Amino acid sequence: MQTITDIKEMQARCLAARAAGQTVAFVPTMGYLHEGHLSLLREGRRRGDLLVLSIFVNPTQFGQGEDLGRYPRDFDRDQAMAAECNVDLIFYPDTAAVYPHGYVTYVNVEGPLTTTLKGACRPTHFRGVTTVVAKLLNIVLPHVALFGRKDFQQLAVIRRMTADLNLPVEIVGMPIVREDDGLAMSSRNQYLTAQERQRAPVLYRTLCEVAARLRNGESCFTALESGAAQTLRNSGFEPDYVAIRNALTLEVPAGTGTAPQVVLAAARLGKARLIDNMILN
Amino acid sequence: MQTITDIKEMQARCLAARAAGQTVAFVPTMGYLHEGHLSLLREGRRRGDLLVLSIFVNPTQFGQGEDLGRYPRDFDRDQAMAAECNVDLIFYPDTAAVYPHGYVTYVNVEGPLTTTLKGACRPTHFRGVTTVVAKLLNIVLPHVALFGRKDFQQLAVIRRMTADLNLPVEIVGMPIVREDDGLAMSSRNQYLTAQERQRAPVLYRTLCEVAARLRNGESCFTALESGAAQTLRNSGFEPDYVAIRNALTLEVPAGTGTAPQVVLAAARLGKARLIDNMILN
Repeated sequence: MQTITDIKEMQARCLAARAAGQTVAFVPTMGYLHEGHLSLLREGRRRGDLLVLSIFVNPTQFGQGEDLGRYPRDFDRDQAMAAECNVDLIFYPDTAAVYPHGYVTYVNVEGPLTTTLKGACRPTHFRGVTTVVAKLLNIVLPHVALFGRKDFQQLAVIRRMTADLNLPVEIVGMPIVREDDGLAMSSRNQYLTAQERQRAPVLYRTLCEVAARLRNGESCFTALESGAAQTLRNSGFEPDYVAIRNALTLEVPAGTGTAPQVVLAAARLGKARLIDNMILN
Repeated sequence: MQTITDIKEMQARCLAARAAGQTVAFVPTMGYLHEGHLSLLREGRRRGDLLVLSIFVNPTQFGQGEDLGRYPRDFDRDQAMAAECNVDLIFYPDTAAVYPHGYVTYVNVEGPLTTTLKGACRPTHFRGVTTVVAKLLNIVLPHVALFGRKDFQQLAVIRRMTADLNLPVEIVGMPIVREDDGLAMSSRNQYLTAQERQRAPVLYRTLCEVAARLRNGESCFTALESGAAQTLRNSGFEPDYVAIRNALTLEVPAGTGTAPQVVLAAARLGKARLIDNMILN
């Protein structure tokens, strides 16, 4: 396993692998790896001859007053976990190399996909995500890139971006990995106090409850959404949204159609902003 | 020579060429080829094992009321000229394939590079250019892409975009090709009446005059610019701008520095919007 910080070197290595007929699999992360990331790496290992992990805490996807400065980082620990997953190359660039002096280019997915839900709460977030993912895909030039489904909206935005920009890559979404009590794994779970950590699975259980009631035929989405938000508030969360959406477009479902639905939630608990979702059908 | 309209087929062909160790050279155009385009194709032929020409009149770079509908098109003529330059593949996609239903992703180079000069006159123009060029580069995946220097600002924007997004391509700018009387070749010269065509070289001669006076040490840029604009008006042009700029940043030069300078002009003459430029030093 080798760590590369230089962009040109990384690109040259991946281009050479491609030219030699190797399949390149890529897992982009912000580091502080957990079992969710490792599930992506294991699937990447299965799919690729060359497995590339990137670790980059991307400043452009953090808004003013968000947690860029205190986002958890531990490269040595990440490196050891990557080695256990048989990662071939870790791409670990500096911020100044990714966004050099004079940098001015941004990739935008416009419209509801990026302006609703998380996009409404964090207006510049997805512009930062799509820009850095486009850059990373251009540097690593993978055949397949793997993302977790925990950030469901992000995955939808990235699928849209790669399709629209004709990027020659297969985007794979992998299932959410959960703690035993149902809490979706996240680097940001580190922010929770012991007491908050005990309450945190209420987010998952609330989504399960909404999903069960939808399966049972309840059809008043707004009542389900506001009831779930109230449940979260009662447990000390500050919910940004609980939303039942079309799983493909993230639009409000038009009645009880046959399109797959997803329940998405984002809520602050103490210093952590937690997200989770559940797909129906 | 083969013409391909399908995006996936085009991408597969270019990826296969790359995998086989071939160098891919690419000339993106809006068709209605002239000697300027042919000079790019000849240089591309020299540099690439596989020479790809794209012909696509890109709607997203035209503003409301601009000449999208009447932009000259003649595929048969273009095909014959491409064959003479030993083009291997013509990429000739439909608008609906490039911008399918639901398309929402745009690449933006932000700031002065796209908001001054042509960007001030045509505010959505460069967003359309960078988006389509990013898409075409992702489809053709060339080692080298060739652009004319007639649209000097466009070339600067594309250089910035490819560097910022880490696209693995060398951007080559090629000299302006002119008619015998100095008029820069352009598909839009077709719009000129016989009488306008006779007056059109005044644009070139005006730039020559400004360049000569700069070389002679004149240093009042605004006087030179407004004098040149008046000369154009006297010959029936409606100038958008005549501007002396830093050739690298397109910023207003800070006094008589050593940075290379460029004189750029855009002016309407009848139904044609003509552009031209001249590099000093």
